[in-house]
Amino acid sequence: MADPTLSPPLTRASVIAAHAAIAPHIHRTPIATSTTLSTFASTPQTPDDLAETEYAGTTPAQPRMQLFFKCENQQRVGAFKARGAFHALSRLSDEELVRGVVTHSSGNHAAALSLAARTRGVPAYIVMPSISTPSKIAATRGYGATIRFSGSTAPEREAVVRDVIAETGAILVPPYDHPDIILGQGTLALEFEEQVAAEAKGKRLDAVIAPCGGGGMLSGVATALSGTGIRVFGAEPSFEGADDARRGLKLGRRIEAVKSLTIADGVRTPVGEIPWSVISDKTKVRDVFAVSEDEIKKALRLLMERMKVFVEPTAALGLAVALYNEEFRRLVEREAGEEGWNVGIVLSGGNTTMEAIGKMYAAPPPEAARAEGVVGINGEQKAENVAG
Amino acid sequence: MADPTLSPPLTRASVIAAHAAIAPHIHRTPIATSTTLSTFASTPQTPDDLAETEYAGTTPAQPRMQLFFKCENQQRVGAFKARGAFHALSRLSDEELVRGVVTHSSGNHAAALSLAARTRGVPAYIVMPSISTPSKIAATRGYGATIRFSGSTAPEREAVVRDVIAETGAILVPPYDHPDIILGQGTLALEFEEQVAAEAKGKRLDAVIAPCGGGGMLSGVATALSGTGIRVFGAEPSFEGADDARRGLKLGRRIEAVKSLTIADGVRTPVGEIPWSVISDKTKVRDVFAVSEDEIKKALRLLMERMKVFVEPTAALGLAVALYNEEFRRLVEREAGEEGWNVGIVLSGGNTTMEAIGKMYAAPPPEAARAEGVVGINGEQKAENVAG
Repeated sequence: MADPTLSPPLTRASVIAAHAAIAPHIHRTPIATSTTLSTFASTPQTPDDLAETEYAGTTPAQPRMQLFFKCENQQRVGAFKARGAFHALSRLSDEELVRGVVTHSSGNHAAALSLAARTRGVPAYIVMPSISTPSKIAATRGYGATIRFSGSTAPEREAVVRDVIAETGAILVPPYDHPDIILGQGTLALEFEEQVAAEAKGKRLDAVIAPCGGGGMLSGVATALSGTGIRVFGAEPSFEGADDARRGLKLGRRIEAVKSLTIADGVRTPVGEIPWSVISDKTKVRDVFAVSEDEIKKALRLLMERMKVFVEPTAALGLAVALYNEEFRRLVEREAGEEGWNVGIVLSGGNTTMEAIGKMYAAPPPEAARAEGVVGINGEQKAENVAG
Repeated sequence: MADPTLSPPLTRASVIAAHAAIAPHIHRTPIATSTTLSTFASTPQTPDDLAETEYAGTTPAQPRMQLFFKCENQQRVGAFKARGAFHALSRLSDEELVRGVVTHSSGNHAAALSLAARTRGVPAYIVMPSISTPSKIAATRGYGATIRFSGSTAPEREAVVRDVIAETGAILVPPYDHPDIILGQGTLALEFEEQVAAEAKGKRLDAVIAPCGGGGMLSGVATALSGTGIRVFGAEPSFEGADDARRGLKLGRRIEAVKSLTIADGVRTPVGEIPWSVISDKTKVRDVFAVSEDEIKKALRLLMERMKVFVEPTAALGLAVALYNEEFRRLVEREAGEEGWNVGIVLSGGNTTMEAIGKMYAAPPPEAARAEGVVGINGEQKAENVAG
């Protein structure tokens, strides 16, 4: 691993420099808006929505929000991770680079690292559990990486990483716990800020909500926006304790282990040490909020069916907080008042599959479906013969 | 129904006038490109792909195509139908308008007509089978329409339409078989042509592929591009005879009835009489090609998983022709040669649901899935604990 103490400091200026370094290699992804979703966000929840929460029986918040979405699902490799990977490689010397790079992550980071390595003409070694699905192995190979198989546990994978390093001298590029990665991911926030100002005539972002897993992106966004007055919030799933950042902030210390199978599979990891140093700084990250699996699914459905963007479940975390987290919504009502806030939401990636969607939204038996009105418009339409 | 003989003639000039009339009410939807999909389109199919076709044993075509996509999934109400509906209403006199409008279609056209009527402040009556799913009824009500229930067959629905007209004097706005609708749908082609020229530096479209159901859109596109040199092709599903336009062209007469449950549910209808007058004119529509359900599903997957656009199955027809129809691919190889063609593909709409996707891509049993490598990346990933 490149010595983190030799990385640039975690400042907005460093993010600006990172952006200049990676700009030729990444997409300036578009921003999107949705009148419908902004209206939903500005509509109070119903007493029923709050019935099972600590806000039961209280008057629902009436925040005003205009939503802006940063479409990192359109980023290279389909996720923001390309930014960190290209930046990490740009920080290596030619001497280090020729040895190649290695990682034990097998999701979006692996794809991003493989692409960045291929672009620089150096090898990427990806350590994956041998039980990985063939489609995932094929996808990683598709980016030109060399795959090294390991057992399924973290120690088994790390052992194979050590072997690769011993054999090849490859540099370990971790998925989030490194300043070079954090600065790279933060570049999306610089674009977001500029694009809203440029495209939305005189508007400026008041807040950004970003998903938080290992925390590389959230801490990068917070670093990029530090000193701008734009508030930064994190979004996590509450399922099986995946809200480790939120819980850690309450405890006053980083939670080091998480074992959650939340559908937001991009954020199943605990926050890393270096991201934590940013996330636990109230002047950088205002707060972190958690949402349920159901809320993630509802938000994901809205993004796909209403906004027509194809995103992975993790990308729905920010919208879920804006629409359903009453604590966040009260904060907006209180601080933004009548004028409301322009809220930026990071759509972190788009790497999911038709089968995964089918699994998440598996239809209940026909009778139940009819009663609840959840059967798709297309699913049951009868053949029509409306010959002219 | 507004008397079709009083409509403007089916010419490019009329489409230009229609565009001016509806421009304040519709979105100028974006165009998109994809290097990956253009590469796929320019890669010969394998002998295996052709094994079951009439091209078995021959050398696969090597066409060169750069693909451009017109994103009508981002159109108002999520489909190009908004164009025709707004245009049809713009052609009614104030006297006619106040009586309201009526239709027996209950898909995208109903939503479009309801929106257009609401915008003009007049009632829209939508005749739907009483067995329609609650979600569909709710969606139609959501656009402010008055719903009138009927039996499920076409004659039963048409009878209720007649009742509505007798009671209210409402004007029937058919979904495709009317010049005002055709001219409205054709406006997308004017934008497409301009956007490719403006955004793709000096490039121009050589061909456009559009889905063909009732034929309103295909005939509109062909009318709009008539005389420009841009070739227009239609795309249909072959399943259960939904390729009525293709078959009709071979027979030399319009096929008047279709009863197909193709997953491309936007094109389950036969071509209407007036669209047929355009589609059967070789100088307007060069040819129509058919694709299988599997090919539609493969193309739909690529649009969603690779391009990250959320579209309905019907929108995948054009890409399926470009990628998998060997007859079309040979034509491109032959006519476009080394230089290749810039092929425009109309993504007609985005109105599908998570449940419908789940149904289309229902996973095989786990053992089969593992062997075939089709289980989603997110579906089976083990919880990872990669604490820093």
